[in-house]
Amino acid sequence: MKMTKKERKYQLIQKKYAGRHLILEFYGCQKNLDSTKEIKKILLKAAKKCQATILSSKIYHFSPQGISAVVIIKESHLSIHTWPEYNYAAIDLFTCGKVSPEKAISELKKGFQPKFIQATLIKRGFLKF
Amino acid sequence: MKMTKKERKYQLIQKKYAGRHLILEFYGCQKNLDSTKEIKKILLKAAKKCQATILSSKIYHFSPQGISAVVIIKESHLSIHTWPEYNYAAIDLFTCGKVSPEKAISELKKGFQPKFIQATLIKRGFLKF
Repeated sequence: MKMTKKERKYQLIQKKYAGRHLILEFYGCQKNLDSTKEIKKILLKAAKKCQATILSSKIYHFSPQGISAVVIIKESHLSIHTWPEYNYAAIDLFTCGKVSPEKAISELKKGFQPKFIQATLIKRGFLKF
Repeated sequence: MKMTKKERKYQLIQKKYAGRHLILEFYGCQKNLDSTKEIKKILLKAAKKCQATILSSKIYHFSPQGISAVVIIKESHLSIHTWPEYNYAAIDLFTCGKVSPEKAISELKKGFQPKFIQATLIKRGFLKF
């Protein structure tokens, strides 16, 4: 949806913030924390699930273990850093516009099968109080 | 510093967490929010300032304005999303190991000259309570 600058400003003031940032702590993950192939697949599925527009993705595997991956979306970014030795993954879903990061959680849960999730949603960029 | 798995586990339990995530809200920025060239320069300088090892960087300019950039570092990632129309930038510095994200703040302040900064430091991945 194309908006004029005035409409956009109005919309942002109504919403009061610029973006939504979902911080996920996945503990006790039972699979995929050290697989670049699977993590890329899971992240891209998660991005699609929340109807984000994917621009590019990058993934690194570290020695002896652990992965960092970032997917840049038109509506900001998704990132993951894994510590397979602790069955832990730090996931961030930063989105703006109509994209809801919460929608990606089911896909991420399915992919990593964590025993415990801590989810924190932060509204970023308060534009008017 | 190369550590054995046992040493690393001990160190992480001592520290109790896997990474440090500095969330910066830059309000009233007076420069560079819409310049890909400058933002790339500022982010890379910030990464060097906190002694991170840069692996790759990616930057996008949106129409009519606004930039998203991510620098993947060996110790996790740095990201920025800008809203030039509100003089606002959302910056995330996620680091692990010996890298201190706070050290990058001076470089970022110099680059964007914000009137007001909100900084929140989150410890990610509590491994033992």
